[in-house]
Amino acid sequence: METAVVDADAVRTSAPSKDDPANLEALFYPQSIAVLGVTQTPGTVPYDIFYNILASGYQGVIYPVAPGKRSICSVRAYRYITDIDDQVDMAVIVFPASVVDKAVEQCGRKGVKGVIIISAGFREVGPEGVKREQRIKDLCRQYNIHLIGPNCLGLINTDPASRLNASFARKMPAQGRIAFLSQSGALCTAVLDYARGKGIGFSKFVSFGNKAGVTEIELMQYLHRDPQTDVILLYLEELRNGRALIEAARAITRGAGAKPILVIKSGRTPQGAHAAASHTGSLAAEDNICEAVFREAGIIRVPSIEELFNTAIMLTGQPMPKGRRLAIVTNAGGPGVMATDAAVSVGLELARLNEGTTRRLRDSLPATANIKNPVDVIGDARSDRYTAALDAVLADPGVDEVLVILTPQSMTNIEDIARAVVSIRGHCHDKLLSASFMGASDVNVGVDILQAAGIPHYILPEWACRAMANVEQVRRWMSQGNGQDPPLRVDAAAAAALLAACPEGYMREDHALAALQAYGLPVPEFKLCATADEAVAFADRIGYPATLRVVSPEVIHKSEVKGIALNLEGPQAVREAFARIQGNVKAALPQAKIMGMLVRRMIPAGHEVILGAKRDAVFGPTLMFGLGGIFVEIFKDVTFALAPLSSGTASRMLREVRAFQILDGARGQAKADIAGIEQALRRLGQLVHDFPRIAELDVNPLIVGPAQQGNAVADVRIRLAGQDQ
Amino acid sequence: METAVVDADAVRTSAPSKDDPANLEALFYPQSIAVLGVTQTPGTVPYDIFYNILASGYQGVIYPVAPGKRSICSVRAYRYITDIDDQVDMAVIVFPASVVDKAVEQCGRKGVKGVIIISAGFREVGPEGVKREQRIKDLCRQYNIHLIGPNCLGLINTDPASRLNASFARKMPAQGRIAFLSQSGALCTAVLDYARGKGIGFSKFVSFGNKAGVTEIELMQYLHRDPQTDVILLYLEELRNGRALIEAARAITRGAGAKPILVIKSGRTPQGAHAAASHTGSLAAEDNICEAVFREAGIIRVPSIEELFNTAIMLTGQPMPKGRRLAIVTNAGGPGVMATDAAVSVGLELARLNEGTTRRLRDSLPATANIKNPVDVIGDARSDRYTAALDAVLADPGVDEVLVILTPQSMTNIEDIARAVVSIRGHCHDKLLSASFMGASDVNVGVDILQAAGIPHYILPEWACRAMANVEQVRRWMSQGNGQDPPLRVDAAAAAALLAACPEGYMREDHALAALQAYGLPVPEFKLCATADEAVAFADRIGYPATLRVVSPEVIHKSEVKGIALNLEGPQAVREAFARIQGNVKAALPQAKIMGMLVRRMIPAGHEVILGAKRDAVFGPTLMFGLGGIFVEIFKDVTFALAPLSSGTASRMLREVRAFQILDGARGQAKADIAGIEQALRRLGQLVHDFPRIAELDVNPLIVGPAQQGNAVADVRIRLAGQDQ
Repeated sequence: METAVVDADAVRTSAPSKDDPANLEALFYPQSIAVLGVTQTPGTVPYDIFYNILASGYQGVIYPVAPGKRSICSVRAYRYITDIDDQVDMAVIVFPASVVDKAVEQCGRKGVKGVIIISAGFREVGPEGVKREQRIKDLCRQYNIHLIGPNCLGLINTDPASRLNASFARKMPAQGRIAFLSQSGALCTAVLDYARGKGIGFSKFVSFGNKAGVTEIELMQYLHRDPQTDVILLYLEELRNGRALIEAARAITRGAGAKPILVIKSGRTPQGAHAAASHTGSLAAEDNICEAVFREAGIIRVPSIEELFNTAIMLTGQPMPKGRRLAIVTNAGGPGVMATDAAVSVGLELARLNEGTTRRLRDSLPATANIKNPVDVIGDARSDRYTAALDAVLADPGVDEVLVILTPQSMTNIEDIARAVVSIRGHCHDKLLSASFMGASDVNVGVDILQAAGIPHYILPEWACRAMANVEQVRRWMSQGNGQDPPLRVDAAAAAALLAACPEGYMREDHALAALQAYGLPVPEFKLCATADEAVAFADRIGYPATLRVVSPEVIHKSEVKGIALNLEGPQAVREAFARIQGNVKAALPQAKIMGMLVRRMIPAGHEVILGAKRDAVFGPTLMFGLGGIFVEIFKDVTFALAPLSSGTASRMLREVRAFQILDGARGQAKADIAGIEQALRRLGQLVHDFPRIAELDVNPLIVGPAQQGNAVADVRIRLAGQDQ
Repeated sequence: METAVVDADAVRTSAPSKDDPANLEALFYPQSIAVLGVTQTPGTVPYDIFYNILASGYQGVIYPVAPGKRSICSVRAYRYITDIDDQVDMAVIVFPASVVDKAVEQCGRKGVKGVIIISAGFREVGPEGVKREQRIKDLCRQYNIHLIGPNCLGLINTDPASRLNASFARKMPAQGRIAFLSQSGALCTAVLDYARGKGIGFSKFVSFGNKAGVTEIELMQYLHRDPQTDVILLYLEELRNGRALIEAARAITRGAGAKPILVIKSGRTPQGAHAAASHTGSLAAEDNICEAVFREAGIIRVPSIEELFNTAIMLTGQPMPKGRRLAIVTNAGGPGVMATDAAVSVGLELARLNEGTTRRLRDSLPATANIKNPVDVIGDARSDRYTAALDAVLADPGVDEVLVILTPQSMTNIEDIARAVVSIRGHCHDKLLSASFMGASDVNVGVDILQAAGIPHYILPEWACRAMANVEQVRRWMSQGNGQDPPLRVDAAAAAALLAACPEGYMREDHALAALQAYGLPVPEFKLCATADEAVAFADRIGYPATLRVVSPEVIHKSEVKGIALNLEGPQAVREAFARIQGNVKAALPQAKIMGMLVRRMIPAGHEVILGAKRDAVFGPTLMFGLGGIFVEIFKDVTFALAPLSSGTASRMLREVRAFQILDGARGQAKADIAGIEQALRRLGQLVHDFPRIAELDVNPLIVGPAQQGNAVADVRIRLAGQDQ
């Protein structure tokens, strides 16, 4: 809610410089705009767009292009954009989809640098539209045009230096420090209306629609440098390039000039994803992968519009707190309890007030007050008591953030208390102050005072707590180092040679194990033995008990054909098992070609974990981690990440499964070799990253040994795509 | 939001009759009221209360009792209530706590039937206050007075027959069909302000404070019969009598004239419970037990005020849907996706529209519309398209409830669409219709139309979905039979004899097993054998392998003293183990008196489940169920219930743990004897219910056999309280 008058020129010079990776200046700060396809009928998109730019106080020049019309809203109209005898920086196209390509081409010839295509009828309508959209993409590339849309609501820049409402939204929003980017145009209208009702302003507001040209990533990068923007909000229905998003978001959310990114990604449920796919014409990515992408990029995902804005207002114009220790000051016990529940549930800590604070509270509050946190100044409290209590808790070094709760009791002087909260805000420095004046009628007068002063206000204390929990996520992320791991030592050439020799389909087990070995995974010594003699000789060397596993291109599931023998205690047992397995396999699959038996020493029992990798159609190589058996199958206790993995992410993946406690020595068990599992995950991630042919890879199980004694790959399956991948 | 003028006499006669269990008529419909302790200073509670009754349009006569004052607000004042020359039905006491008892006594002598004590300074301030409160309770009992409070905001009845605001709330709320009961007075002020801002009305509104007299249970029973009330809302900080609450709530929430009960119970987290305890001076019950109590009583627990009212408005004046199949009609794809996500996440089903419906939609909507659910009428839809789409989906027999979403796009005629929704409502019959006009500014004109017509409206579709999920819970509960189980056959006399012989502390294992046997739990045959010969003879009879377990009052943890021998394959092994255990125990605990060895046949391995029982200080006997080991310890995968158990609750307890799938034959395993576990739980519940001396009881583990082959108690520990319990 920044409403101060800003010097337009000063802003203009501080606006993003021309050497940005994607210079979107022409879109947000054009000196002149042409609107192509304007009509004379109010209440239609082609008219409204033109009218909105005209009426919003736009600081440049606007030209309607409307074949056959002399003027639109008293402004001289042109037949073609090329007829305009002035430079045109940006064009807004509202022609029907079928002629949009021609309009774009004319824009290109005119030297337009930015184009917004409002019109629908492209990718979202099927194959015909996809072709149309491709044609436009090609033209924009050819003419070096930054394209927003098609199929969007348009763009708004509240900066007084531009004051541009190039959208068919009903009204220009207030100026503020929140930027909003949306894939859904319709949602934008709801968000603008919601924000206006709540007194929330925006810096920039973009509906990017089909994102045929400029993507959310380039917009985020632009907003990162936009001095008008403190926080970036994003509504997404599909994630097209998860990797690029991670890279971009990391650069935005950390380091000097970092800005938080909040996102709503719909299609969380399979049904929702299905609805989104039919709506955007896009491929649905798995939601748990999206979740991982956001987390690794420092993007805060929120479930609803309400939480999106509740969090955003806490991230604009407020100090970033140093921690998550919350003090609550309330005039009502019940809401204090509810706020405590909410705070603890979302992971905040209730601050322990120190002795000095407690003494100050005791001295300045009545005897019936509760001087412990939540501090209850009691129902008949007036502003003086709030001031005293807030002064005391804000001075306590053990307090990072303060929530002021007010219920409108008969003695409550709501306005005075609101003013007291505003004036005390100067004492906050690095503490986050927010308020919940509970109600929706009498309290409004106080709420208005708080909001005008930029103090985050929430009708319910629970909402404040959820917002603080999101701020805490931002804080933790920003305070993490962005350290680079030293590169992993792997024998990529050996793995490449192995893969090159393998056709499409499942790799032979010995080859798969060898590939893992090349990448430094803990593969116990093995040998493919063609004869029983060879098997016995190898077993003698590595020691007993031994195991035999049949190797045959025709055998995918070894146990189904009785192709495995375990616990072989000596040479005789190995010899017998060799023959027995040969017999079993021949009986089950007479046509199977048996290459021999994979001989290995029996791996001692231990916890079993699964390391999985899959090439996602949207995100490329992804990794999965979980404990075997019921943990995966019944508790769905697994985590995901993109490959390759940083050591930090590997560590996070392990610790996020609930069964991690089992590895970590819960129930008096020995601690497992956790560092070894992390290493194995990272090496696996490197392998699937380096070789796009690996479509699927499962180490199931990796048998986990005690700490520092190492783990062992017990079974692996690798499925390769064809050689041309 | 019922605003129709009601015939006062008609209402009066339909009000609860005088022979209610707790006849609270004098509190809600008094013919005359005295306010004791009124002052002349506006802005103080003692004045405001009097003024509010006077100003609210109360239909009876009001008398101020204000010693030393001639009049209050121009109404003649009295020195004592006994001076009033009229019958006084109800008194409101606002005197300081120290003289409240005298005031109550005078009320009693005057024949007052209902008293509201607003004053604080009782149980919540410590031992002195507890005594004061007890004195008042005694007086009320003596004089047969129904007491509300002390330490409360008061009571409001919006019924035109009474129009009573006997509270210090700033304003009388609108009339409506929602009753609200709150333990926190301060929260009431926030709720009233919130409701006024949202246009929500109330039938009755009671702040019951310390509930020294009338409890939430009696109030709920009264409201059950109140023809003005459709739904009962409850804010609780402590549950004092969980058993009585269950009985009462079950009678209210099921059968003819059933009304839903929604509750916010704060103190969900340990920190919140701690804050609540210091606030109410009450004992905190475990939240998971509260959860179980609510569930067994058909009470819907909600986490916040917002969800409380969001649900309540859906339960007043709306048809109860037949199921949970939701159709969404929207003019915006994005919000349609978000609503789908929200609906599926909370357990609703997306309705599959039938062919006829799809055809109707295709015929009446443009080609670009999405005629699958969520039905997208597209951004330029006006009211005619909404009408057509709603007509079609409401006629579909596969649709139980419909959510209308609107985003305010430039062509959207918000008012007309709101009116279309209102007029279509007549077609609903048994279908639940709600709306989400997204925004907070332009959409308000439509929202007002919807709300005035009593159509539940939500700013965000997510809120509508959460409310529908709660309605679905109500529906399911109401449609369940309230069938009585046949009594369990148990040998209570045998168990009583066993317990009578046992002192305080842990029961000897053979006694504990015998007690379980008496109650029909699956205890494998056992015998306490004093000599090795005896042990061998018994083992020979029951068969091998056998187990021996030392029995000694001094030995609590048998394995710590090596007091157990398993897998004894023959007589010789039994003999040796007998001597070995004797030696072990003597070495470890030289003073231990060894009663002998408990001999049993080894129980075959199987899944292990834990059946636990504990006497809760607030709720009495409670039961816990979970699978053993990591399931309980790491996944906290357990459920709770009050003892004794119905068969329905036993079934629910088993099925609510996630590991139930393991018992149910997941991963290709044999199905366990689930009916047997349910029986065991119920019998255990009966045992701890019948014998209050049982403070704690753990069957850990019950080893679970295959379906219909039965389970076996492998170990039990029972801790008894002293004989006087």
